[in-house]
Amino acid sequence: MPLPASVQSGTGQLTINQSFSVALSGSHDGSLDSEVQRFQHQLSRQTGIPFRPTSGAAATLQVHADRIRKPVQELGEDESYVLTVADSGAKLTAPTTLGALRGLQTFLQLVQITPAGFAVPSVTIKDQPRFAWRGTLIDVSRHFIPIDVLKRNLDGMAAVKMNVLHWHLSDDQGFRVESKKFPKLTQMGSDGLFYTQEEIRDLIAYAHERGIRVMPEFDIPGHSRSWFLGYPELSSGAGPYTLEGGGAGPYIDPIMDPTRESTYKFLEKFIAEMAKLFPDAYFHIGGDEVDGKQWDANPKVQEFIHAHGMKNNQDLQAYFNQRLEKIVAKNHKTMVGWDDILHPDLPKTIVVQSWRGQASLAAAAKQGYRGLLSYGYYLDLMWPASRHYAVDPMADAAATLTPEQRSLILGGESCQWAEWVTPENIDSHIWPRNAVVAERLWSPQEAKDVASMYARMNAVSLELEWLGLTHRSARLHMLHRMAGTADIAALRNLADVVEPVKDYDRWSDAKGPIDFHSPLARMIDTVSPESDTARHFSDLVQTFAQSAYKDQATETQIRMWLTTWRDNDARLHPVLEQSFFLQEDEPLSQNLSALGATGLEALDYLDKGQPAPDAWKTQQLALIEQAKTRQADLLLMVVVPVEQLVEASAAQPN
Amino acid sequence: MPLPASVQSGTGQLTINQSFSVALSGSHDGSLDSEVQRFQHQLSRQTGIPFRPTSGAAATLQVHADRIRKPVQELGEDESYVLTVADSGAKLTAPTTLGALRGLQTFLQLVQITPAGFAVPSVTIKDQPRFAWRGTLIDVSRHFIPIDVLKRNLDGMAAVKMNVLHWHLSDDQGFRVESKKFPKLTQMGSDGLFYTQEEIRDLIAYAHERGIRVMPEFDIPGHSRSWFLGYPELSSGAGPYTLEGGGAGPYIDPIMDPTRESTYKFLEKFIAEMAKLFPDAYFHIGGDEVDGKQWDANPKVQEFIHAHGMKNNQDLQAYFNQRLEKIVAKNHKTMVGWDDILHPDLPKTIVVQSWRGQASLAAAAKQGYRGLLSYGYYLDLMWPASRHYAVDPMADAAATLTPEQRSLILGGESCQWAEWVTPENIDSHIWPRNAVVAERLWSPQEAKDVASMYARMNAVSLELEWLGLTHRSARLHMLHRMAGTADIAALRNLADVVEPVKDYDRWSDAKGPIDFHSPLARMIDTVSPESDTARHFSDLVQTFAQSAYKDQATETQIRMWLTTWRDNDARLHPVLEQSFFLQEDEPLSQNLSALGATGLEALDYLDKGQPAPDAWKTQQLALIEQAKTRQADLLLMVVVPVEQLVEASAAQPN
Repeated sequence: MPLPASVQSGTGQLTINQSFSVALSGSHDGSLDSEVQRFQHQLSRQTGIPFRPTSGAAATLQVHADRIRKPVQELGEDESYVLTVADSGAKLTAPTTLGALRGLQTFLQLVQITPAGFAVPSVTIKDQPRFAWRGTLIDVSRHFIPIDVLKRNLDGMAAVKMNVLHWHLSDDQGFRVESKKFPKLTQMGSDGLFYTQEEIRDLIAYAHERGIRVMPEFDIPGHSRSWFLGYPELSSGAGPYTLEGGGAGPYIDPIMDPTRESTYKFLEKFIAEMAKLFPDAYFHIGGDEVDGKQWDANPKVQEFIHAHGMKNNQDLQAYFNQRLEKIVAKNHKTMVGWDDILHPDLPKTIVVQSWRGQASLAAAAKQGYRGLLSYGYYLDLMWPASRHYAVDPMADAAATLTPEQRSLILGGESCQWAEWVTPENIDSHIWPRNAVVAERLWSPQEAKDVASMYARMNAVSLELEWLGLTHRSARLHMLHRMAGTADIAALRNLADVVEPVKDYDRWSDAKGPIDFHSPLARMIDTVSPESDTARHFSDLVQTFAQSAYKDQATETQIRMWLTTWRDNDARLHPVLEQSFFLQEDEPLSQNLSALGATGLEALDYLDKGQPAPDAWKTQQLALIEQAKTRQADLLLMVVVPVEQLVEASAAQPN
Repeated sequence: MPLPASVQSGTGQLTINQSFSVALSGSHDGSLDSEVQRFQHQLSRQTGIPFRPTSGAAATLQVHADRIRKPVQELGEDESYVLTVADSGAKLTAPTTLGALRGLQTFLQLVQITPAGFAVPSVTIKDQPRFAWRGTLIDVSRHFIPIDVLKRNLDGMAAVKMNVLHWHLSDDQGFRVESKKFPKLTQMGSDGLFYTQEEIRDLIAYAHERGIRVMPEFDIPGHSRSWFLGYPELSSGAGPYTLEGGGAGPYIDPIMDPTRESTYKFLEKFIAEMAKLFPDAYFHIGGDEVDGKQWDANPKVQEFIHAHGMKNNQDLQAYFNQRLEKIVAKNHKTMVGWDDILHPDLPKTIVVQSWRGQASLAAAAKQGYRGLLSYGYYLDLMWPASRHYAVDPMADAAATLTPEQRSLILGGESCQWAEWVTPENIDSHIWPRNAVVAERLWSPQEAKDVASMYARMNAVSLELEWLGLTHRSARLHMLHRMAGTADIAALRNLADVVEPVKDYDRWSDAKGPIDFHSPLARMIDTVSPESDTARHFSDLVQTFAQSAYKDQATETQIRMWLTTWRDNDARLHPVLEQSFFLQEDEPLSQNLSALGATGLEALDYLDKGQPAPDAWKTQQLALIEQAKTRQADLLLMVVVPVEQLVEASAAQPN
């Protein structure tokens, strides 16, 4: 994962044992050399084989790159490669060392355990990406994410061939980059948690070694409260500002003042400093969700709008963006912004990132702007992987574009907004679902088989833990925290079948300003966004239904799950009771047990071949409706298949 | 854990919430300052609460140390402290900052989850160690253990108040310390894996911050083959030597030549260099298991023995040790050696470490030598924690000593020899059992309750994972490796009830020289040395027996386990079959299922109150005998309680 562009299977397999070795020929550079080292280290972790430094013997895997990659990675640089594996050895060739990096990741994913040892099946793979821009946005403002956590996420991105880290570095809740010209940005605009310039250079080098560009985003003129603590003169409002202020939702008032020349002087200096720090050719200025309240309330701003013949706040933002674009361009960067910035006055060189949908992407392309899709790839919405997988940048409105317009769609980015994540659980919010977005952006558009996607996502999820990501292991730690010293087996049974509420439903619980320093360690923070167990159980019930509820083996498996759930609350109740974290989950646990009992009764009716009585059905459906309601911000994901069993048991002919 | 010297419980509890803070008064130094930071970090991990920098308000925990500790930690430095916790706040006082470190670890262990939040119960603890020397030996020669793995083990040692890392740095299989005077020691005497002097200084500083001394061991004149690859002139034999050579057991031939002056010239320079590198006052020269074969075979050595009026090889080693001791003493260090070195010609200043038992410790004490116990604390023997817990340095032969002689017994050390561990699984071989040795050496001799020990060991085991140790999590990764992409639930059921063969029984499988670079990733390398599930199941069966096999609730639990096991092979078989790692475990899996079925049948007989038929009993006992035999170097640990059920079911009156 991602699925290669072309795969031809052969016969036989290449054994991976202690004598495995890699040789480089053609061009190579620092990033390929260190990639080969990482490759061997990762292969050793996955297989448990401590490879020894080789000498003499012919290499198992020959790697050949025609030329070295660019010192600063460019958009559209050749990432293609050809990988041939036979029982006698493997060969990886690529036009650039960047393509060789991608091919090595493919090789790692091909390694399987077999009855005869570790092996790679014989295969010929010709591969290149569908889109040149395949990114992940990580917000580090709402919750600061330390460098080491970002690094392991870069490892994960490289494993699935993503090539852009979009680093959302400032927002209302915190400014996270050291500025030597404007030190108060972090001194007053953060809680003390920010990256030094040295750390940033280190992270960029780390990403570059893995074939990943790093694009910074400084979101202006909205989402910029953190700037105003140190530099209130930038603001359109009166202040004073605090980081903790603001409402319960993502929409926040404070906006930069685009009417003062001093604002542009500030931005000139600031952007010049940041443009040097971040070598990437693209520079993201945000531009989203500009709430015009402060502009409306500021007579000077309104006066400026009238004096310049503008019609409204949108025109004012366009004016701001035009001036901003000139500053960015002067620093030899291309400006990128959210689709809110789209305005015919802006030059066609800019790139528009759509959080609103393929329609705005298509609209931009029709006007000649390049675009990126993020709508549909918001990982913080807690959607199942299949829903992200179904979103294609070229679908819907974009499907009607001319070939030339289509070529303006560069790719897309998943987005991990950080209101509800901490360094502890961010991995599980990004992974493994991000691999599915990576596949959508790399693999041919025809790759759409959901069952295959889930099987491969499961495999890649295990691989990612070997890389050091904690999306699986952190969950266990967090369950132990909530359970104290109690056994967590029963707690895990519950955690395995619940999911967080979807979209922004969690916000609806918030009363008043959200404290981004409060603990995020409840069950909702612990569980995976998508329940594998629930999906598996639902699949079992579908299989059972296809057998007209006759298949014995499937029924046995269904009964096993239902029995476990029915008996679970008795085991779990004492654990829930003694933990303030878990008390809120008692109704969930009771509902799960009730569902287990209901499902077993439905199976009994099905076994007997007699329709379940109406009164029983009515009673069970009431229980099921109740179990569908959100509890402790969680949803019980096995309700629907149990409902299906109840309906089926009642629908039998007499 | 370890249990404090004195605990007085109060009423009420101190709540730990976001406003928790620590204040220091009295003396403080770098190690206490950084310990407070680590303390807050660890408390934050354990509770999920992101503590904010405090200002103004009265601190929740006041820490007061009378004076700062020694810049190089000394044996017997005051480690005592008093900790008082009330609902209004907590106070920790200690004569030294070293004692304050110990008290902070106690506080961390007292934090519990409650229905009302995290809290520490009201308590007054007055605590000090029983023994001044509480160490862990880690062998890094047989398998190299990287610095980061050692660091997390130092974190674990500090959490259980151990204060010595005994670093076994050279042995036949590898020399692991950079010597600038003798670079060939690592260049030729290792596989390229060794510590630079800078890394060593860094580790020592890391240990010091945590109140842990670092004592190096360079094992001579035996266990020294790795020295001879670069410097064959040191050897009593002809060579040439290779790291891979040697037999299948721990006893290896090559020995240093104590008859040549050049040997001492070498050691003078070498020890002078190492004495500067390692600031600790104690310097371990090994001295164990000197196999005299090379001395016997070398006419010059025999000639030397006769010429100097010595009787045998033992006298020659005593001569060597005497000269060595002078070199060590010249470098202002106290020599430590294994009990093999005990010889009346050696000065009383040396310290003798016993791997042979309390008898040799007592013998040494009677002669006026100070001693350390390691017999009974060998973690690589795969004993259960209870067996280590039962070993007391003052027991057996040592119990007959005079008070003055007893005062010569400084403490003890657990030993993690590294023939069968890798950086991946060493944590699970050391932890949590090492916490039990730590308790034996810190807590009063009267602390002997095994059930309490296991409950506390379980709690500390969870705490240690928060510190970054991987004794629990690595197991899951290793199970996944063996299972490929298959679900590991059934595999975990099997892994949970097996233990590695005990003592050195694993060696008996080895044919010819052992390749210390071969993978260690089989089931035996994956499972815990002690099965919690088996112990728990055995306890259940004992409880059931005490109820005369009548208690329904206990029987239900026993049936749940037996049913899981009976049905497990059907689920597990397809997983085992497709993995070369797991094929060897098929008999174990079949035996476990058979035991499950047998146990359930026995329960049926008990439920009916009818004696099980003789023929059935005979058949089951045959199966049980077979299930007791070692398979794939593993033992099935639930055989005995199932046997007990079978016997009980057959022994019922008719």
